[in-house]
Amino acid sequence: MSTAGLLIRCKAAVAWESGKPLSIEEVEVAPPQKNEVRIKILFTSLCHTDVYFWDAKGQNPLFPRILGHEAGGIVESVGEGVTDLEPGDHVLPIFTGECKECAHCLSEESNMCDLLRINTDRGEMLHDGKSRFSINGKPIYHFLGTSTFSEYTVVHVGQVAKINPDAPLDKVCVLSCGMSTGFGATVNVAKPKKGQSVAIFGLGAVGLAAAEGARVSGASRIIGVDLNPSRFEQAKKFGVTEFVNPKDHNKPVQEVIAEMTGGGVDRSVECTGSIQAMISAFECVHDGWGVAVLVGVPNKDDAFKTHPVNLLNERTLKGTFFGNYKPRTDIPAVVERYMNKELELDKFITHSVPFSEIYKAFELMLAGEGLRCVIRMDA
Amino acid sequence: MSTAGLLIRCKAAVAWESGKPLSIEEVEVAPPQKNEVRIKILFTSLCHTDVYFWDAKGQNPLFPRILGHEAGGIVESVGEGVTDLEPGDHVLPIFTGECKECAHCLSEESNMCDLLRINTDRGEMLHDGKSRFSINGKPIYHFLGTSTFSEYTVVHVGQVAKINPDAPLDKVCVLSCGMSTGFGATVNVAKPKKGQSVAIFGLGAVGLAAAEGARVSGASRIIGVDLNPSRFEQAKKFGVTEFVNPKDHNKPVQEVIAEMTGGGVDRSVECTGSIQAMISAFECVHDGWGVAVLVGVPNKDDAFKTHPVNLLNERTLKGTFFGNYKPRTDIPAVVERYMNKELELDKFITHSVPFSEIYKAFELMLAGEGLRCVIRMDA
Ligand SMILES: NC(=O)c1ccc[n+]([C@@H]2O[C@H](COP(=O)([O-])OP(=O)(O)OC[C@H]3O[C@@H](n4cnc5c(N)ncnc54)[C@H](O)[C@@H]3O)[C@@H](O)[C@H]2O)c1
Ligand SMILES: NC(=O)c1ccc[n+]([C@@H]2O[C@H](COP(=O)([O-])OP(=O)(O)OC[C@H]3O[C@@H](n4cnc5c(N)ncnc54)[C@H](O)[C@@H]3O)[C@@H](O)[C@H]2O)c1
Ligand SMILES: [Zn+2]
Ligand SMILES: [Zn+2]
Ligand SMILES: [Zn+2]
Ligand SMILES: [Zn+2]
Repeated sequence: MSTAGLLIRCKAAVAWESGKPLSIEEVEVAPPQKNEVRIKILFTSLCHTDVYFWDAKGQNPLFPRILGHEAGGIVESVGEGVTDLEPGDHVLPIFTGECKECAHCLSEESNMCDLLRINTDRGEMLHDGKSRFSINGKPIYHFLGTSTFSEYTVVHVGQVAKINPDAPLDKVCVLSCGMSTGFGATVNVAKPKKGQSVAIFGLGAVGLAAAEGARVSGASRIIGVDLNPSRFEQAKKFGVTEFVNPKDHNKPVQEVIAEMTGGGVDRSVECTGSIQAMISAFECVHDGWGVAVLVGVPNKDDAFKTHPVNLLNERTLKGTFFGNYKPRTDIPAVVERYMNKELELDKFITHSVPFSEIYKAFELMLAGEGLRCVIRMDA
Repeated sequence: MSTAGLLIRCKAAVAWESGKPLSIEEVEVAPPQKNEVRIKILFTSLCHTDVYFWDAKGQNPLFPRILGHEAGGIVESVGEGVTDLEPGDHVLPIFTGECKECAHCLSEESNMCDLLRINTDRGEMLHDGKSRFSINGKPIYHFLGTSTFSEYTVVHVGQVAKINPDAPLDKVCVLSCGMSTGFGATVNVAKPKKGQSVAIFGLGAVGLAAAEGARVSGASRIIGVDLNPSRFEQAKKFGVTEFVNPKDHNKPVQEVIAEMTGGGVDRSVECTGSIQAMISAFECVHDGWGVAVLVGVPNKDDAFKTHPVNLLNERTLKGTFFGNYKPRTDIPAVVERYMNKELELDKFITHSVPFSEIYKAFELMLAGEGLRCVIRMDA
């Protein structure tokens, strides 16, 4: 029996207040409205961005909220005006969208759609400014337009990538955010040339995906930087060849890297969210040609600060969301790169828990253990 | 009679202390040593960088010093090891060099030669750490390795561009710094696409040369920003189509520009030396694809500061010296562009004075009047 057009009651992990364990509740999920899609989530994983908005120390708090944005699922039903998706399609919901009509969507360079770009402060759907989630009639806020910590969720069609139905959703779900973000930051934005050196700041899943991009690009040296030394053993599997822990040195890490490399690395990719790491990642690239790319999500009051001569010395500084991929246009092909075994994903998935134990995924991330923990919704 | 190998006595404008008018003195100019060239300067012009180091408010003071770095002249004699220049060659001395052997010189992207890059704090020649200028045996410091406010000067061969002897030195002397810097910042670094919008901060000679680069690139809108409204009339001759004076608005100029352009310009080039203008020039480019290029020489204690989200929103920030041109390899061809009438230079030269009245060039620059004042050494 089809559930299309009906309210669905299902389980969701609700964040009631900042920093408190999510609680699994029965929620009502309204049918998709105009240009919306209701998706049955099968697998979701935890990204550090979820933790920032759950803990809400450096971000605007918005509660109660259903977090989650890295996931894979199957279309349950579609709202009015949705023509390119139908029930049964395998999809990845994505935290940034593609309307295919605005200046950004028409530009070859940008994936920052005017209509559907990342907006961490919005808790409702665009169509009517309302939430599709409720508990006893009380609305629960959305997160990033995805809210994947729910058995069913409603997402704008522009934030849904339709993928090869043969792709295993328990693996490719990590392409919905972290792996595409890190990999794309290197291959689409930093663009190291064959034989160049690359520094990666932060060896979590996003950073190691950036390292994977450096490996695929033929980098000669991949220098991993992390404050957590337990990251280093794992990172060896990802082609990282050298390690620097800023805590082991009594000078700024950018100076340590400059000494290791005769003046600086050719490329750097920052995947930490720490403003200090952002500044170091910029200042550690070689003058004359170095390119630094920022990926980490900063605190809302952070300031990036450097002496302008570091820029005049012909360094380039850029930032990127979602590895500059356009979600609907580009992500199906990234899934194919996994299917063709060009891109490895399995090594990123270090843990897996049933939905009822989603708190374990938070515990692992807070302890800096493992990379991605996949949460199985049906278990 | 050849003066090669002999000490030359000639006139030079000496800066004895910060901010005090230069005084024309008789100086002794030693013969060129290994890899050095002695040049008879025929024309030199004043760039704002000379004024910064003369006034030395935001820079390290080093006196007594012979300033000047934008000039044209003729080789008088060459030192040991100089094979590609000979007496009589027409040359432009350049404040940044090209050894043709270091990693930068071998890189296609950089012009920041390890050996001969700009060094505003060095007052002596590299070969022996000594000055070639003296008065009664007391050494006078060099500036930028060029010190063109002298009838004769000694320059490292790597800082000398040999040019077409038919090129009028009283015109192409301005390619020795300002015009190449501004023009190159746009065409080599900002690289606007045909039809894009470009903001130019600072409508002095460097900024108007950047505007000339935007015009040649087919920019659709060239927005000039300056605090000095008298710059605007002049700038119309340089293809600048719109003007913004930050003083006319009670909000940051980056917001004014965002409103004028539906979100920001496609490219911006900062040619002021003001840290506030550098930040505005960055923040006024469109998210998703905007590129900002810094050219102005900052004060030594300035800090570039912006919210990292301005970078994450897919803006690019770069800096450049000398428009990314390699002095020996690229400048002869830029001179040819003038000879072929592709590039206009005459309109940049608004004043001309004899050497004895060099103070007038300083007065004009301090008053924000005119663009380049060419100083005639033989007059
Ligand atoms: N721009 C985007 O589109 C986008 C998308 C996804 C994630 N992100 C961001 O990317 C970052 C990484 O995400 P993740 O899921 O891999 O997180 P993670 O917690 O798994 O990894 C971050 C790593 O950075 C290290 N680190 C923290 N501060 C550091 C410092 N000062 N120097 C060196 N290392 C430091 C931590 O020890 C950790 O190993 C987060 O900020 C996340 O919000 C951005
Ligand atoms: N990077 C390089 O290779 C290089 C080479 C040459 C010159 N420069 C630098 O380029 C800059 C321009 O040189 P120039 O010779 O054209 O100088 P200039 O004095 O002729 O022109 C500078 C202009 O900037 C304007 N200005 C100052 N502060 C401003 C602000 N906050 N907002 C808007 N406009 C402002 C001034 O009114 C003036 O019209 C200087 O800083 C100079 O040192 C750099
Ligand atoms: Zn994420
Ligand atoms: Zn769009
Ligand atoms: Zn100059
Ligand atoms: Zn060199």
